[in-house]
Amino acid sequence: MRKVEDALKIVMSEAKALSFERIAITEADGRVLAEEITSPIFHPPSDNSAMDGFSVRWEDVEDASKDKPVTLNVVENIPAGKLSDVSLKSGEATSIMTGASIPSGADTVIRVEDTNRSRGETIQIYSGGKKGQDIRLRGENIKKGDKIYDAGTVIGPAEVGMFALMGKPMVSVYRKPNVAILVTGDEIRDLDEEVDENKITNSNGYTLAAQVKEAGGIPHLLGIARDTKEALKVKLTQAFEADVVLTSGGVSMGYHDYVKEVLQELGVEIKFWRVDMRPGHPLAFGMLGEKPVFGLPGNPVSTMVSFEQFARPRIRVMGGHKLAYRPVVSAVLTEGMTNKKGRKHFVRGQIRFEEGKYLASSTGTQGSGVLLSMSKANCLIILPDEGGEFPAGTNVKVQLLGRQEMGQAEPGY
Amino acid sequence: MRKVEDALKIVMSEAKALSFERIAITEADGRVLAEEITSPIFHPPSDNSAMDGFSVRWEDVEDASKDKPVTLNVVENIPAGKLSDVSLKSGEATSIMTGASIPSGADTVIRVEDTNRSRGETIQIYSGGKKGQDIRLRGENIKKGDKIYDAGTVIGPAEVGMFALMGKPMVSVYRKPNVAILVTGDEIRDLDEEVDENKITNSNGYTLAAQVKEAGGIPHLLGIARDTKEALKVKLTQAFEADVVLTSGGVSMGYHDYVKEVLQELGVEIKFWRVDMRPGHPLAFGMLGEKPVFGLPGNPVSTMVSFEQFARPRIRVMGGHKLAYRPVVSAVLTEGMTNKKGRKHFVRGQIRFEEGKYLASSTGTQGSGVLLSMSKANCLIILPDEGGEFPAGTNVKVQLLGRQEMGQAEPGY
Repeated sequence: MRKVEDALKIVMSEAKALSFERIAITEADGRVLAEEITSPIFHPPSDNSAMDGFSVRWEDVEDASKDKPVTLNVVENIPAGKLSDVSLKSGEATSIMTGASIPSGADTVIRVEDTNRSRGETIQIYSGGKKGQDIRLRGENIKKGDKIYDAGTVIGPAEVGMFALMGKPMVSVYRKPNVAILVTGDEIRDLDEEVDENKITNSNGYTLAAQVKEAGGIPHLLGIARDTKEALKVKLTQAFEADVVLTSGGVSMGYHDYVKEVLQELGVEIKFWRVDMRPGHPLAFGMLGEKPVFGLPGNPVSTMVSFEQFARPRIRVMGGHKLAYRPVVSAVLTEGMTNKKGRKHFVRGQIRFEEGKYLASSTGTQGSGVLLSMSKANCLIILPDEGGEFPAGTNVKVQLLGRQEMGQAEPGY
Repeated sequence: MRKVEDALKIVMSEAKALSFERIAITEADGRVLAEEITSPIFHPPSDNSAMDGFSVRWEDVEDASKDKPVTLNVVENIPAGKLSDVSLKSGEATSIMTGASIPSGADTVIRVEDTNRSRGETIQIYSGGKKGQDIRLRGENIKKGDKIYDAGTVIGPAEVGMFALMGKPMVSVYRKPNVAILVTGDEIRDLDEEVDENKITNSNGYTLAAQVKEAGGIPHLLGIARDTKEALKVKLTQAFEADVVLTSGGVSMGYHDYVKEVLQELGVEIKFWRVDMRPGHPLAFGMLGEKPVFGLPGNPVSTMVSFEQFARPRIRVMGGHKLAYRPVVSAVLTEGMTNKKGRKHFVRGQIRFEEGKYLASSTGTQGSGVLLSMSKANCLIILPDEGGEFPAGTNVKVQLLGRQEMGQAEPGY
């Protein structure tokens, strides 16, 4: 029997990221960078105009004003993206677009608003402004060789854009862990099997597959293994081709709960097989070489909660995530709760942020078979192992499940 | 010139969800349910045992104790998933697994711990417990016909599990909006074009594609349209096959900024083309029939911020989301900021939750070309149109960008 904290330490003790793969940046959002990125470019690539206007030599225009405009000859029109081969002499200007390179000789940009170009070949300047104004300098934002990202960076839209800006069509990311999912039990049918009113349809395989995806893994559903040692051995041998193995059910003390025994016969070193928690008390964890194997309990909510506490962080680390754990915040209970001494209780709850604090309440019935209550939960309220009474108003730790900040119905300006 | 609030009202005024499609539940996580789900089943499907133990008639065992055990004949062993055809008579018991149906005649389950089965055919009961204990009643959790989910529910792991439990391999979800992305400009090269030191590589197409995916849409990259009316017309005509059209660049007042003009020539009704915001001031929005068309500005940060404020909520509603807008929270500035009167300023910032309040700071340089600063931001600090000084300690509104609660490096128990 293990405390949750100790069990988690065992699960995470040898966790490390898998190898990497190179993928197109169009597929990279949501993935974890597996290489350090240094910039191969200067950005901007050359001194360029920050405005639509005219490039000039400042000494020509420093005294210009609305009353005493300075007239310059326009020797070229430089569109964005074109490099000018003009070398600007005194008395000359070029028209220039935002983003276009500043021609040699020019040192200042005058905005269109401060000019008048009534006749084509010349331009009147109404204000000289400051020397160097409205020019973005080469390498002002990024210099060649600058370190831009560390390995472990989670890639979002801005990072994808930065890769493109640096001319990188491909990046290295950590490989997603392949996770085999095996459901056990004679009392359940799968979706593609004959309907039997007395059987419960397999939900754990599907729940776990969605949880694996959310954690950044690739789920592989292996279906249901019936409660015989032979059936289990065949399916588990197949499951061992994955990076992580999850089973659900068959780890209690019933006559047909063979999972732990069969895992051992197949060479899995069982590290623990019970955890002081509710729901999810029976939980086997072992290693086959470097492959973690989780024998999760069979009750739908127990399966989900055990996955959250143990399998998810391990899968996250294998996928390269540095922030492997769900955020835990302090919240105020809006209703009283109790916990029996000896087990950490993860209460399905709802959390909201109101007037500067988090408030947490239960979603109601906490039976480990009541999957629907997991639908309503956006957090797990953690009642400590020491047990006791936790009246309304008590501060408790609450684990956020990533569902509470999805959005709001009206804009919040 | 429009205020952000008014422009957003125009963008959202005709927004509605697209049609639906039926997909496998294994692909449904993250999608939005487009049908009401009522349960076709009772759950549990029959009265069944909550424990491994023995089903008995309570009248036989109510007086049983450790000192005066009651001995019963075990007439059957009922594994989980098997329906018993036994009718229990007085003096009889069946062994029963968790989840197995209670045989007729039995009304109570005695846990293994309260029994002794030293000899195979009989069982000694040490405690009668309460009548009806450890039996889960048919339909206790869900009754046939119960409404389980409304249309608009965002599907997560628990919902996928519930669909399976109800025997549903497929569900109806809102179709993802197809979003065409067209970048304009002669000053940029695409990743697959010849390297030119003076050109900047297209980042907006890739940034927008990742943003579209995050918003629940399907991005379609149409590459770069050069700054001629003909090139724009050809690409835009292609773009109109999508549900939403995004362009970036070409909406300023430069000589080559044809986007608004060409959109109008192609029949797009332009609703507005400037918004009082920073970054992102030039922004054209129009409709071609029911198809929204966004002419986003070309500076990388302006593109992203304008997408966030206008295109994202519209795409979210088209994808069936009810919570279309980013969450906005109140936060305390940790540094002073200023805003010129007349434009709402979205300052790239970092937000953290500390000792009961949100604290927000700037990510530094706010130039609209500095995409890297968008990488560091997990929020946009909103400085109001009225402008003014906002010293450290001021309460401001902050829009969360969905990056701030991804996880933590250590478990928080």
